[in-house]
Amino acid sequence: MPITGRVDQRRARGEGTRAEILHVAANLASRDGVEGLTLGALADALQMSKSGVVRHFGSREKLQLETVRHAEDVFASIVLSPAQGHRAGLDRLRRLVDAWLDYLVGDTFTGGCFFYAAAAELDRRPGPLRDAIAASVRAGLASLRDDLTAAVAAGALAPGTDVDHLLFELHAYLQEVSTSHLLLEDPKAAEHGRAAVEGLIRRHSEPRG
Amino acid sequence: MPITGRVDQRRARGEGTRAEILHVAANLASRDGVEGLTLGALADALQMSKSGVVRHFGSREKLQLETVRHAEDVFASIVLSPAQGHRAGLDRLRRLVDAWLDYLVGDTFTGGCFFYAAAAELDRRPGPLRDAIAASVRAGLASLRDDLTAAVAAGALAPGTDVDHLLFELHAYLQEVSTSHLLLEDPKAAEHGRAAVEGLIRRHSEPRG
Repeated sequence: MPITGRVDQRRARGEGTRAEILHVAANLASRDGVEGLTLGALADALQMSKSGVVRHFGSREKLQLETVRHAEDVFASIVLSPAQGHRAGLDRLRRLVDAWLDYLVGDTFTGGCFFYAAAAELDRRPGPLRDAIAASVRAGLASLRDDLTAAVAAGALAPGTDVDHLLFELHAYLQEVSTSHLLLEDPKAAEHGRAAVEGLIRRHSEPRG
Repeated sequence: MPITGRVDQRRARGEGTRAEILHVAANLASRDGVEGLTLGALADALQMSKSGVVRHFGSREKLQLETVRHAEDVFASIVLSPAQGHRAGLDRLRRLVDAWLDYLVGDTFTGGCFFYAAAAELDRRPGPLRDAIAASVRAGLASLRDDLTAAVAAGALAPGTDVDHLLFELHAYLQEVSTSHLLLEDPKAAEHGRAAVEGLIRRHSEPRG
């Protein structure tokens, strides 16, 4: 698969060279790791001189941080923003999950979900990159939490529902879709993810016996 | 945290230099990635000459593959083997999950679960390393599947239970413990994991309405 992915082509149009370069960088990092994203590797992927890449970003560290921010923008624009016009609750949760699943199995980034890869890569490497990835993951969790909390408040989920625990299970299902899709190559990855989320909603919607 | 972890010290005693070196290598790889495991990086960690490491392993590729096999041995000896003296079913599943959770949050490897990190790193990088990691993950899944299948056969889980789907949820919970523990630093990571697994067993043990 070429390192310039679908979204790159779509987003690059009209967004100028910097966004185009950053999307190639995000694709590279999703496959080879954020630490695998060097000025030289990016220059090679772009068939550009290394000094040209340096001119754009200054240093490898700045390139890496800007790439994380670009990936965040992509995730927000594809997954988080479309749901934001709707009222928080179960209906918006389902929209969010649908968009999230499309993002995960649609190979938005050529190496799979940028944050799935980067979280596992950087979780024990303290520094600004790890902080940025943790903040991105927390932002995704916060969106899911808003919907769960609103659903409990509206009585759509049972009163006393442990939102922290539901969030754990919900995020587990989404992450496992990446493992199933990318490593195990299960064509039913998204189907399992959706069924798991629906099961979770169902068992907390009903009065518990 | 020093790169020579707990298990290294325990396993190294009486197992000679090769296992000791491999455990340092697995710790390094769990933190910096399997692709970050170079002959030079390992030599530095061991305060050994690079030629000494080359003498042991021949090439970087052989070192990486042997390190994956070593991590598999560690996982098997800590997580899979202790359950194997017991009859397959729900009781063994709980033993397996307990040992798995201890492994995940006990920092058996200094960078966290070797396979959690390596799967996300290598899932889109075809080759023998990816194949080895996929085989390791499938071996873990097969153990969980044996217990689920036996539990259905024994009537402990409801007849007609979708074992494939339960396996998806079960593995999702285990993986999310790594994300919670390593990236989000949630002290309740294992508690959430255990509660999620118990919930899964409970809702499939009862006749469905």
